[in-house]
Amino acid sequence: MLINRNSFGIIGGDRRQLALAESIAGDGFLVYACGFEKAEFGEAVQKADLKKTAAACATILLPLPITADGVSLKAEYAEHPILLNESFAELLQNHRVYAGMPERAVRVCPALAQVGMQDYSAREDFALRNAAVTAEGAIECAMREFPGTICGSRCLIAGFGRIGSQLAPRLRALGAAVSVTVRRAESAAAVEAAGCRAVPLVKLGDGGEYDFLFNTVPDVLFTQKVLSVYPRGTLLIDLSSAPGGVDMEAAKKLGIRAIHAFSLPAKVAPRTAGEIIKQTVYHMMRE
Amino acid sequence: MLINRNSFGIIGGDRRQLALAESIAGDGFLVYACGFEKAEFGEAVQKADLKKTAAACATILLPLPITADGVSLKAEYAEHPILLNESFAELLQNHRVYAGMPERAVRVCPALAQVGMQDYSAREDFALRNAAVTAEGAIECAMREFPGTICGSRCLIAGFGRIGSQLAPRLRALGAAVSVTVRRAESAAAVEAAGCRAVPLVKLGDGGEYDFLFNTVPDVLFTQKVLSVYPRGTLLIDLSSAPGGVDMEAAKKLGIRAIHAFSLPAKVAPRTAGEIIKQTVYHMMRE
Amino acid sequence: MLINRNSFGIIGGDRRQLALAESIAGDGFLVYACGFEKAEFGEAVQKADLKKTAAACATILLPLPITADGVSLKAEYAEHPILLNESFAELLQNHRVYAGMPERAVRVCPALAQVGMQDYSAREDFALRNAAVTAEGAIECAMREFPGTICGSRCLIAGFGRIGSQLAPRLRALGAAVSVTVRRAESAAAVEAAGCRAVPLVKLGDGGEYDFLFNTVPDVLFTQKVLSVYPRGTLLIDLSSAPGGVDMEAAKKLGIRAIHAFSLPAKVAPRTAGEIIKQTVYHMMRE
Amino acid sequence: MLINRNSFGIIGGDRRQLALAESIAGDGFLVYACGFEKAEFGEAVQKADLKKTAAACATILLPLPITADGVSLKAEYAEHPILLNESFAELLQNHRVYAGMPERAVRVCPALAQVGMQDYSAREDFALRNAAVTAEGAIECAMREFPGTICGSRCLIAGFGRIGSQLAPRLRALGAAVSVTVRRAESAAAVEAAGCRAVPLVKLGDGGEYDFLFNTVPDVLFTQKVLSVYPRGTLLIDLSSAPGGVDMEAAKKLGIRAIHAFSLPAKVAPRTAGEIIKQTVYHMMRE
Repeated sequence: MLINRNSFGIIGGDRRQLALAESIAGDGFLVYACGFEKAEFGEAVQKADLKKTAAACATILLPLPITADGVSLKAEYAEHPILLNESFAELLQNHRVYAGMPERAVRVCPALAQVGMQDYSAREDFALRNAAVTAEGAIECAMREFPGTICGSRCLIAGFGRIGSQLAPRLRALGAAVSVTVRRAESAAAVEAAGCRAVPLVKLGDGGEYDFLFNTVPDVLFTQKVLSVYPRGTLLIDLSSAPGGVDMEAAKKLGIRAIHAFSLPAKVAPRTAGEIIKQTVYHMMRE
Repeated sequence: MLINRNSFGIIGGDRRQLALAESIAGDGFLVYACGFEKAEFGEAVQKADLKKTAAACATILLPLPITADGVSLKAEYAEHPILLNESFAELLQNHRVYAGMPERAVRVCPALAQVGMQDYSAREDFALRNAAVTAEGAIECAMREFPGTICGSRCLIAGFGRIGSQLAPRLRALGAAVSVTVRRAESAAAVEAAGCRAVPLVKLGDGGEYDFLFNTVPDVLFTQKVLSVYPRGTLLIDLSSAPGGVDMEAAKKLGIRAIHAFSLPAKVAPRTAGEIIKQTVYHMMRE
Repeated sequence: MLINRNSFGIIGGDRRQLALAESIAGDGFLVYACGFEKAEFGEAVQKADLKKTAAACATILLPLPITADGVSLKAEYAEHPILLNESFAELLQNHRVYAGMPERAVRVCPALAQVGMQDYSAREDFALRNAAVTAEGAIECAMREFPGTICGSRCLIAGFGRIGSQLAPRLRALGAAVSVTVRRAESAAAVEAAGCRAVPLVKLGDGGEYDFLFNTVPDVLFTQKVLSVYPRGTLLIDLSSAPGGVDMEAAKKLGIRAIHAFSLPAKVAPRTAGEIIKQTVYHMMRE
Repeated sequence: MLINRNSFGIIGGDRRQLALAESIAGDGFLVYACGFEKAEFGEAVQKADLKKTAAACATILLPLPITADGVSLKAEYAEHPILLNESFAELLQNHRVYAGMPERAVRVCPALAQVGMQDYSAREDFALRNAAVTAEGAIECAMREFPGTICGSRCLIAGFGRIGSQLAPRLRALGAAVSVTVRRAESAAAVEAAGCRAVPLVKLGDGGEYDFLFNTVPDVLFTQKVLSVYPRGTLLIDLSSAPGGVDMEAAKKLGIRAIHAFSLPAKVAPRTAGEIIKQTVYHMMRE
């Protein structure tokens, strides 16, 4: 069997890769899916083992992150683990391979360095689109956990980066009063231009009457000391990546309902998250 | 014991009445709660039986709807049913009584007509505020059920009344393209002024590529014939009051995921829904 | 010459009728324009005198208002006045005639009552669409007159009817903090559902720190007494119809910059205002 | 007379500096204004000549740009030119001097390099806040020049930098359909996350049905060739800095109404623009 320039091998992954496989097939490409024994696909996606997938496909897509356990490929629908070892590396040779955080796999199996995996998760467009999904997922989470409405609520967002700057206008458009903590003068400018109130980060410890706290900053801003100034029952949604920016134990003691909302895109909108991987990879292939 | 002008008796209800009781107590009034044996309150709310509640309180608040089963008061947290009978009517005599859809109880027990119950649910301000909560709840429901994001989605809303006119701008603000079916020229005008696309109702049966259909119209617009023109997998959220505006059986056969989202305020935002009852009743008392 | 079912006669008007004539011609109909000696049209619109226009056209469109001086037809581009007299009435007999506020002309010339003029300006869809134009025109006016930005400003709108309810979300979306005075509980509900602050009308006289006051209420709310509680330099834009809701003399004395912004649609967006007349008339013809 | 640490000298400028002087005085500082013979201030601002201003004030604020003619200080309200020469440089020695684009003055008079002027216009927070004002000014300009409404219009924005990214959501919130040309994948991501349509820059030359074109890119994107694909009568608002991104002569020939909207903040919102200078300088002083 000849390698088909127009075929994609999807090896491993979660609900995003299910959607990704279907979506690429929907574009008219041949798609082989490996490591999805427990999943169901439409007719256009063909399940295959590693060898067949590698043999048939010029382009291989690996999950994000490439490994969750530090040993095998992330593959939630696989019946047997797919090990990140030399034989895996050998199969991928001479393919265009796209992966999320591939350096984690190289640390496990140095031979994978020779494969030349490209990291779609490191691209700015990927990060921005995922931040939009995360912002919407944060709103879903806030609506689900809160016994009131966003409309009329008072929200404080820590950070105005990719996620914060997309979350703030959405909350405001839903009728909330939105404050954002900022460290730099230029962030204050951007916050105010968005119709929100800028609060210097140092004032986070002054507390205030908020229904929601959203954290988007990867440092532990919400220490016991900071948490102690917010009233019991305040809802805190932590959107920063693991291990998060909240002293969860302190929160529990103080009666702050803190929720780790990690990896929202895969959870709340796997189809969109799969589309984002697809668009990013397509874009990388054209470059 | 003298009737206290500044005390409120909350008899029966669901999560909204729990919040309502706490909120009125938070305003400094005495609150007696009857029919809440299985619920927990803060210190400020006192549980009591019917007799004591009636004896102590000048103002009595009954649930919405006043009865769900057509026999007893709606009382989700009661251990024993509170019957809508003549002795209940007698206890309420000479009180200011506020209820939701009280005519349902009068049908069960004509003696209740003498009580002069006032209907908070019939007021326009109550309806508008609940519609806002419903609109937000519809978005929560859409986010939860849909594997993609609202941002970038295509939505069709049937109807531009209280709910539709509050749902449309929220969806649009979240980044959706929003179309609304309208029957009258003036609704088309209002839809377009909100930056949305107006579609004559008769075109509902022409179908279209939508990710979401929202129904707010109490007629059965979504018949088998209409549903058949929408692609399998379309998500339909029915926000009209029971029995709803969708032929659910046909939807199932056609692969349309139709969801009855009835009584959203009580489910998604009981605290806000309780506040709305409180504000409405306070307002009625001042009139 | 036979009356042509597909021809329209536009008699008199302002910039809106110029746009209206061009737009109807653009839809493929024959258009005769009478009373536009001083205006220029594209090739598709034919200038004609009264007799020819009446002879050629089954449908006649008259301006809004039909008369400004109470004697002749409103016709800003006419070289000679077109009198509202019996010969005018006779010419219009047996035509479908659409006019704005036709009762004003009937008062001048009772014979016009026989013509059966239909009033497009009395329709709800017309009023709503014009209110949207007025809301946008109010923002243009506010931007032009104010040395700061809407973003970050504090606005008070008196009234939440057609204009107020379209102005409030636009101002808020541009980054303003918006308060709205309301008389009824249901208006307060609608205001808060739009993410704005509701202020009881009686508190208008309490003043406050606002950059903008917008009046949409046809009563004289802004009396000397009310105006006196607002700081000198406050900008007040009166959007209510003439004679307006502001004691202009008192405003001047008190240093409040009050602007009568009457008839905004014709001034700020004549093309859209012409389109609105066209759509309304088309709609009336189909009924 | 001793230099007063709490006094500010405002030397030269336009309407922004008028507002700036008043605003700093409003904060309780002593303010001397030099080069404002033709202007009027409130009581708190004192007019003075160069010598007195330099003698009295530790902090000196110069205009943006520091010179318009390449010879003298920009000073629209001065009766006599204030020359950028060695004696001017000498007077400024040992002061904290803040200026906009000071390098232009140094080119005129190298001795000014010794003064150590700090450039407030080069700061990111300043640029962002001015971009917000420019975005709002662009809307004012569009409303004024266009005979229709923003609501319902189709807008194309070239560029999604500071100005484009603030203009797009404002236009969309007013009811427009907004497309944005982008060069990079990450800009497309940001555009779509804002609910707008991303168009690859190369497609600018494909034309399209737009009511408005807004240019924010400093290159000449709108060449004769590009302009020729847009219909006559299209309104093009150029927001890029002089000399602009539009072949104005070609536009004229092709019937495109192109408007150079340079230096909008000073024109449309001098008070806010003055506030922005003040906030930026205060911030620099605290650093």
